[in-house]
Amino acid sequence: MSTLEATEVLSLSSDLADFASGLRWQDIPAPAQLAARRTVANVVGLAINACRHEAVEAALSALHDLGMRGKFCVLGRSDRLAIASAAFVNGVSMHVEDFDDTHLRTVVHPGAPIVPAAFAVAELTGRDGAEVLAAITAGVEVACRVGIGLGAGHFDIGWHLTGTMGHLGAAAAAGRLLRLDADRMRDALAIAATQASGHTEQLGTMSKPMHPGKAAADGVEAALLAAAGIGGPQRPIEGRRGLGALMAPAPNLALALDNLGTTWEIEENAFKPYSCGIVSHPVIDAAIGFRGLIADPDTIEAVEIVVRPVVLDVMGIKEPDTGLRSKFSVFHCFAVGFVDGEAGPAQYSDARATDATIVRLRQKIRATTDPSMPKDACRVTVRTTDGVSHHIDIDHASGSRDRPLTNEQLRAKFESLVRPVLGNRTEDAWERTWRLDESDGVHAVFRASQPLA
Amino acid sequence: MSTLEATEVLSLSSDLADFASGLRWQDIPAPAQLAARRTVANVVGLAINACRHEAVEAALSALHDLGMRGKFCVLGRSDRLAIASAAFVNGVSMHVEDFDDTHLRTVVHPGAPIVPAAFAVAELTGRDGAEVLAAITAGVEVACRVGIGLGAGHFDIGWHLTGTMGHLGAAAAAGRLLRLDADRMRDALAIAATQASGHTEQLGTMSKPMHPGKAAADGVEAALLAAAGIGGPQRPIEGRRGLGALMAPAPNLALALDNLGTTWEIEENAFKPYSCGIVSHPVIDAAIGFRGLIADPDTIEAVEIVVRPVVLDVMGIKEPDTGLRSKFSVFHCFAVGFVDGEAGPAQYSDARATDATIVRLRQKIRATTDPSMPKDACRVTVRTTDGVSHHIDIDHASGSRDRPLTNEQLRAKFESLVRPVLGNRTEDAWERTWRLDESDGVHAVFRASQPLA
Repeated sequence: MSTLEATEVLSLSSDLADFASGLRWQDIPAPAQLAARRTVANVVGLAINACRHEAVEAALSALHDLGMRGKFCVLGRSDRLAIASAAFVNGVSMHVEDFDDTHLRTVVHPGAPIVPAAFAVAELTGRDGAEVLAAITAGVEVACRVGIGLGAGHFDIGWHLTGTMGHLGAAAAAGRLLRLDADRMRDALAIAATQASGHTEQLGTMSKPMHPGKAAADGVEAALLAAAGIGGPQRPIEGRRGLGALMAPAPNLALALDNLGTTWEIEENAFKPYSCGIVSHPVIDAAIGFRGLIADPDTIEAVEIVVRPVVLDVMGIKEPDTGLRSKFSVFHCFAVGFVDGEAGPAQYSDARATDATIVRLRQKIRATTDPSMPKDACRVTVRTTDGVSHHIDIDHASGSRDRPLTNEQLRAKFESLVRPVLGNRTEDAWERTWRLDESDGVHAVFRASQPLA
Repeated sequence: MSTLEATEVLSLSSDLADFASGLRWQDIPAPAQLAARRTVANVVGLAINACRHEAVEAALSALHDLGMRGKFCVLGRSDRLAIASAAFVNGVSMHVEDFDDTHLRTVVHPGAPIVPAAFAVAELTGRDGAEVLAAITAGVEVACRVGIGLGAGHFDIGWHLTGTMGHLGAAAAAGRLLRLDADRMRDALAIAATQASGHTEQLGTMSKPMHPGKAAADGVEAALLAAAGIGGPQRPIEGRRGLGALMAPAPNLALALDNLGTTWEIEENAFKPYSCGIVSHPVIDAAIGFRGLIADPDTIEAVEIVVRPVVLDVMGIKEPDTGLRSKFSVFHCFAVGFVDGEAGPAQYSDARATDATIVRLRQKIRATTDPSMPKDACRVTVRTTDGVSHHIDIDHASGSRDRPLTNEQLRAKFESLVRPVLGNRTEDAWERTWRLDESDGVHAVFRASQPLA
């Protein structure tokens, strides 16, 4: 008997729909509530930061041609779009810098597809902030749990879970805010399931950040189609010709229901402190640590870093000459971490990649590899011109499972992302976003994010 | 070496993009031109017929909530929608009666996803009818050829090709009418590929006709996103983590390029004469034939039909009590064929399923099976009350590969579908549609299809 025929999964779609349609904020334990607020704050900051990104501008240009003007808000901009299009653009801007959240077990980036769908339907329905956060939590649980049920094979063969599972999560969040009953919610999940898509072949192209945008838009559409009476099959995910059978080589869908409503996958959602490949994050931690020990980069004589071999495989560019290439240089990562004290999108610009101080420091760095080095660790030694050697060992990188970003670090990330756009209104935007649970809706977040008239 | 690595397919996406972006009406041989005109006429008739179908009304209601009003036409209605939404609704109405066209080798129903995408972009750009038909031909070739390359396994595991391949075809047609160059066309195909979706688990639900609607809408969107500068990967279909590797167990993508531009898959597109399962079509042919031999159904004493076993497996309901169930009754098929002389959507209504004359005739029919009976054949004997036995053998059903619908039969189908909606304007609608190649655009077709003010 294949796992798809196991008795316990024969009602998977209905069970998830029951759960998502019934979830209330007050039923969610405090740690999961906090995780939901962190998930929202992280992607709102990213969307504001990237609101003028080339991919966002291109998407908006196409949506203009598509006649998608409307009443719904785009974070960081004064444009008003049709509901699904607003969700689309916000999904693109949250994901385009590869700096968003990660559910590490499944590699779903849940914020970018789910939060925009919830925000758009919250604007439509006027739900309060707590209900929006409950809907987002429902969406993240559905997306990550089905991702767990599909198993690693779903990603390994080439599906981009932020697109595929993002569709389900966005539909669940949108459906929850439309207050669909469990049957209509199952229809919304069915419509989203048969539209679930996204290939990792597209990574490295402008098409890739469209995946969460499309998932968000399709999720909104799926929920509204279900509300209008478009019904789907009983078993869109677990059926013989459903999502599970089609999109994973060895699904074990029963796992999706393990402790549903008791343990919360959203608590496993991790936030990147730095906008580059996660393998270099321990080195950036160390670089920032050295700022407390050494004041002036020109007093540095040599830097020795010891990392896992994979770090040089994927981030081994010694002298990157562009911002894009600097994202693949652990040497650049150390240099900006030390000089700037951060490693956000601004640190990976063409200007930073060719800055004289950064270039000089990069040239003093030597990297060696140690296959026994743990996944999120590194060792760094800095010798200064006065002959002293300073050592920092990082056991667990900031943002890793064992050392999640603190709320203060998350706020610092938000502020660093948002300040270039909103200046002295940054703190207000943070407060509105961070305290969404106490607010009467998402409008205050949108308003705080937008350029002054 | 897997077939995905064969040299000849390493430029598959680019080769298809080259072909689709460069195809001109005057370069298409006459039989393929005729097939394109037949493809359009068939689905336009279906869309006008189904313009008030429950699924269409539900979709329109959801699109209203989505804020999708605009300037683009819906066949048979006065609604005006945003461009992608107009394509969506036309795709739904063309497919919802399961009465559309079939590329038999792949089971793609190409008309419903591709024609609406072309019509919508033709409205946007004002291209003339011949260019619209060239774009549709390009779309059908791309959809059916990639379907051939994926092989039967793509369908067998549960993908609905009208959704998956429909995405590619719609994007190709839309891109052709935007006059994208070959590189931008490849981007459009890439964006469509990473959105290609549709599960056969959804068959038998209202969600299923959304598949071609969504493919049409996404195809329009993909072409406009590509035009706005959103780029995709070089090998969205043939790449290691692209559509072919992800969505078919044993693709042989080289087949997609066989005789590209020399033989034309659109010529293999077949049209159903009757709006029910294709296996009962020989029996309906026979029933209509008996109208020339027998005048009054009440003079029939007994009907013996001999069919393949599959006919009773899927259409064995003896006394269907609803219109929906009557579609799965070969007995009903014979009865309406004889009494009404046709078997369109009107013959599968609740009223016809319970009509006294039909019910009486159905009860006189006995069916036996013969495993040696060819696929599109049947034998029928009718004994009348005067003691005479009449025989009709059908060797190849009308609409089959060996006996395609004639242009006259296609026109009769169109008129039977459209007359209940347009009355005495039906002939004008046919002329506008059939002569699209000579017209200056699609507006005349839309205008002819719509209710008078």
